[in-house]
Amino acid sequence: MSTSVFQTRRSEAARRARREGLGALLITHLPDVQYLSGFTGSNAALTVYASGKPAVLMTDGRYTKQVRAEAAGTKVEIVDRAALPAACALIAKSGVKRCGVDAVHTTVEAWEQMKRSLPAAKRGILKPVGAMVSLQREVKDAEELRVMRKAAKLGCKLFEHMLGYMQAGMTELAVAAELEHEARLRGAQGMSFTTIVATGERSAMPHGHASPARLPRNGFITLDFGVILDGYCSDMTRTVYMGRATNEERQAYEAVLASQMAGVDAVKAGVACAEVDEACRSVLRRAGLAKWFTHGTGHGVGLEIHEGPRLGTGQRQKLEPGMVVTIEPGVYLTRKKGRNFGIRIEDMVVVKKNGGEVITAEAPKGWIQI
Amino acid sequence: MSTSVFQTRRSEAARRARREGLGALLITHLPDVQYLSGFTGSNAALTVYASGKPAVLMTDGRYTKQVRAEAAGTKVEIVDRAALPAACALIAKSGVKRCGVDAVHTTVEAWEQMKRSLPAAKRGILKPVGAMVSLQREVKDAEELRVMRKAAKLGCKLFEHMLGYMQAGMTELAVAAELEHEARLRGAQGMSFTTIVATGERSAMPHGHASPARLPRNGFITLDFGVILDGYCSDMTRTVYMGRATNEERQAYEAVLASQMAGVDAVKAGVACAEVDEACRSVLRRAGLAKWFTHGTGHGVGLEIHEGPRLGTGQRQKLEPGMVVTIEPGVYLTRKKGRNFGIRIEDMVVVKKNGGEVITAEAPKGWIQI
Repeated sequence: MSTSVFQTRRSEAARRARREGLGALLITHLPDVQYLSGFTGSNAALTVYASGKPAVLMTDGRYTKQVRAEAAGTKVEIVDRAALPAACALIAKSGVKRCGVDAVHTTVEAWEQMKRSLPAAKRGILKPVGAMVSLQREVKDAEELRVMRKAAKLGCKLFEHMLGYMQAGMTELAVAAELEHEARLRGAQGMSFTTIVATGERSAMPHGHASPARLPRNGFITLDFGVILDGYCSDMTRTVYMGRATNEERQAYEAVLASQMAGVDAVKAGVACAEVDEACRSVLRRAGLAKWFTHGTGHGVGLEIHEGPRLGTGQRQKLEPGMVVTIEPGVYLTRKKGRNFGIRIEDMVVVKKNGGEVITAEAPKGWIQI
Repeated sequence: MSTSVFQTRRSEAARRARREGLGALLITHLPDVQYLSGFTGSNAALTVYASGKPAVLMTDGRYTKQVRAEAAGTKVEIVDRAALPAACALIAKSGVKRCGVDAVHTTVEAWEQMKRSLPAAKRGILKPVGAMVSLQREVKDAEELRVMRKAAKLGCKLFEHMLGYMQAGMTELAVAAELEHEARLRGAQGMSFTTIVATGERSAMPHGHASPARLPRNGFITLDFGVILDGYCSDMTRTVYMGRATNEERQAYEAVLASQMAGVDAVKAGVACAEVDEACRSVLRRAGLAKWFTHGTGHGVGLEIHEGPRLGTGQRQKLEPGMVVTIEPGVYLTRKKGRNFGIRIEDMVVVKKNGGEVITAEAPKGWIQI
């Protein structure tokens, strides 16, 4: 991404700081640092000034070469040890009277350390605030949407590849290995979370990581995976059937699919997140399956796999154009008697003024039997 | 692992709580929860009582099935939403007067939320304390050492595999893809961090993730990678040479190797972490390369890839038997003129009473030219 993209983002962060009456923001949450500067190192403190004075990025000597390459448009200082006290000292010297510190991502210990690093008379400068930059990141800019479409598309290609690969008797681990290998060969920097391959009875675990269990003769296979491409995460889930399904299994699948499509249809700028969740939940309620839908409907995604907004019961936040959210209802039958199984279907959706754009649409989500 | 292992760990945590005058510990850092209960879900709050009263693990409905399988020996409560306020309410009702909360891993926001979830008269129960369980985890028990030896051994096998695989002209990404695929096929649950494949000039970046750059005709290849096996991380680095090295490159390699071996030799229970760091650093100082050794010598490793203790300048903490630490000096030449390159060699070492046991010894670390 060009340096002007980062400059624009920092200007917006500065505008938000001014709106909150803050003279600066001290940013240490690494995805926020990456968003505002391009730097991907593991030790960083970025100070953004409300006045528009150039931002300062502090990191250590391990990153001397890397930071020059990645954060070309930012003023960089290499410090000897932890970046945090050095950044606090800089802010104290700058004359800023109120500096926002992200209370959502700062630990109690780091907060105490920051205060201790300043003379007593200066400690009041640091003000705990909300996750301002993470909130800013919820709405993606054009550059981000371009990358995220690419990442989502790669996910779809991988699902297609896996359809031709999976066979009864293979282990879940072998399936994950193939999927991740293919992802790498096609340019992914890594996976955005531990790949979920949950088959047969294990599909009833929403977060069943790939295990040595073998693909069933008759049963569901849930694949929930994401790639990281140019720093951005994709996230999608498909559930397919191996062998011959019972009527109950088939009907449950159709109910989850209807629920998921109702959720996608509900996505539109201005709609409350809880409404989208309710759109999914009500379909499953009518099918008598709502009690097995044990999680929220979705979440924002971007540089992090889980970002705001959260789409769940009681979430009053409204969708905004440019947000990228997942829609991923599922049911997980964990009954004392009878066969247990789970089903989840998940797309990534870009919020638009008048609806939603599914960017994982290339991967079929109708009933697939293999 | 058997439920008695977790019970023993919880008893030790309870003993540590009593020693600090605490009636309970409220544990939310996920690796700590996993260590004390076996549960690997993403939402959990575990309460351990100093009195020996059974611990209570709270999580949400997504994990109903998984938590039963993983945390068999723990009392489990499935809560509707966030586990944290529910756990606070439980502690308030229990009559405990002082409950320790880990300030190193609790965010300022979570801390405020915890206090708000209690009636004003009860808020004083919550006491910020250090990372007590993470400190306990620094010394591995027999069960952990068994798993970590296995993980380290798998890492060595992978390095051997890669020696036969790498060829000039391949991309770094292809190398990472092969390594990670092979890891999966041999049973890894995933990689413990983003694989570093840094070649040619890129080897001068200590954290150069695999990129589309091609393996050089003449240059270093640094492979720094780890697998996750049964929840535990391995971590190792080897640097090999492709093509014909210059004298300077060869000499720098021998200096790093001597430095690394001096570090390994310095490992012994009772030795301060800074002494091990100095053992590495002094060798590089004599070789005139210390200014390019821009990071610490190593760190603890276990359920997390970076744990305590830290082996670096000024670290007065003493090594204890059962700790597993990395010894990983490196040099990264980033000169304005001349060819730049980097070299790092890293082993995992179990601290013993009279020395250290290198558990990544199967991977050769002498000069390798391919």
